[in-house]
Amino acid sequence: MIVLKLGGSVITDKERPETLDNAALERAAAAIAGALEGAHEKLVIVHGGGSFGHHNASEHGVSTTAGTHEASAVLDIHGAMTTLNAFVLRRLLECDVQAVPVHPFSAAYRDRDGELHLPTEQVATLCAEGFVPVLHGDLVAHSGSGATVVSGDELVVELATALESDRIGVCSTVPGVLDDDGTVIDRISSYSDVAAVLGESEATDVTGGMAGKVTALLEVPGEASIFGLEDLEAFLAGEQVGTTLE
Amino acid sequence: MIVLKLGGSVITDKERPETLDNAALERAAAAIAGALEGAHEKLVIVHGGGSFGHHNASEHGVSTTAGTHEASAVLDIHGAMTTLNAFVLRRLLECDVQAVPVHPFSAAYRDRDGELHLPTEQVATLCAEGFVPVLHGDLVAHSGSGATVVSGDELVVELATALESDRIGVCSTVPGVLDDDGTVIDRISSYSDVAAVLGESEATDVTGGMAGKVTALLEVPGEASIFGLEDLEAFLAGEQVGTTLE
Repeated sequence: MIVLKLGGSVITDKERPETLDNAALERAAAAIAGALEGAHEKLVIVHGGGSFGHHNASEHGVSTTAGTHEASAVLDIHGAMTTLNAFVLRRLLECDVQAVPVHPFSAAYRDRDGELHLPTEQVATLCAEGFVPVLHGDLVAHSGSGATVVSGDELVVELATALESDRIGVCSTVPGVLDDDGTVIDRISSYSDVAAVLGESEATDVTGGMAGKVTALLEVPGEASIFGLEDLEAFLAGEQVGTTLE
Repeated sequence: MIVLKLGGSVITDKERPETLDNAALERAAAAIAGALEGAHEKLVIVHGGGSFGHHNASEHGVSTTAGTHEASAVLDIHGAMTTLNAFVLRRLLECDVQAVPVHPFSAAYRDRDGELHLPTEQVATLCAEGFVPVLHGDLVAHSGSGATVVSGDELVVELATALESDRIGVCSTVPGVLDDDGTVIDRISSYSDVAAVLGESEATDVTGGMAGKVTALLEVPGEASIFGLEDLEAFLAGEQVGTTLE
């Protein structure tokens, strides 16, 4: 099984609120369809918010730790993410990928310590039945805080761990983790390898930062890769692309 | 905690595909808002499909046991239900009920024996944070069968059992379970009390039939009531209305 993250910045135009990068999304959908054709690999997709969701969350002052108790704020932020999710599903379906929605708000919650609890048996069953579940950054119920943000990156880590995925792919706007000269670092096996480039890791940075991504992905069993859209097809074909975290 | 079912036939016009019964939905929303005002009772709402979802499911040949492996069929049926859910949420929100969506397709699955597994900790957390989760009849992943229908009645039984609700209310198009003379039967404590009126119970009848409802509700701990929309306010105020199943 592969868990694939499509970065929100990859599939949307981050400069304009609630605007798709349609060409990028179509390219990603075509690469995914090509990889699944004739293959028996199971795939779970998670996408970020990009220009959907993020500004709504900021307007309402909602983050992974600061919550809201207003249903109208929930519907606004969650609604923006489900709108983007519907676009992603539509493009995948047009390429004959059997994509179906799994909204984290409907399934997951955080406990009082902020720890995320995401049931994954529904996802595993969908995969076993030949569907491609598509999750997304979202809000989730948060004990003591109302509803807070759950990032696509957090979901990737949870899914990959619970479903014991063989590979994780993080399709990003950069071709990998870059060193000081702007060259892609091939392999990272411990955070100390890149602390000089990325700075000290912040465990709380769960919504998009590269330092947080690397830290989280290093803790997941199995291999993870961070790469650009141009390498998605090669990644899905089993090639080593971008930066591999082991 | 109260688990309240709003029958699909109550809130939609069953004669016309994908048509709300807006007056009935507004009346239900107002009754719910009135009951929650100043009260500390927790409430979970489940609605059926009525003229949304049912005809889509029939067109695709999908039932609680016959499934589909087509994502387009899933999106069609699930999409009809989420459209109705959005209308229900909107009307509740207009009455200041902090209603938020919980889509069963995102959370639940059936195992090979058809048994439904519905995580409920996200629902409990939403309630504890002051939200009113609104679930609905839907499709769910079904091991070996693709995706099959889950009825609102099944969800009510699962939620009431897992969340140990104090009361279950089933708001229906009839004022209760009727005897041969059309009079509401006040109390039912065993199926044999009504077998003569309802016929033999069929355990497989989970999508709307009164016999299936009565059988399932008799098995849930706590008291359940079946009543018409005109009694919703009184039920929420704690009164005995319609038929009580103990």
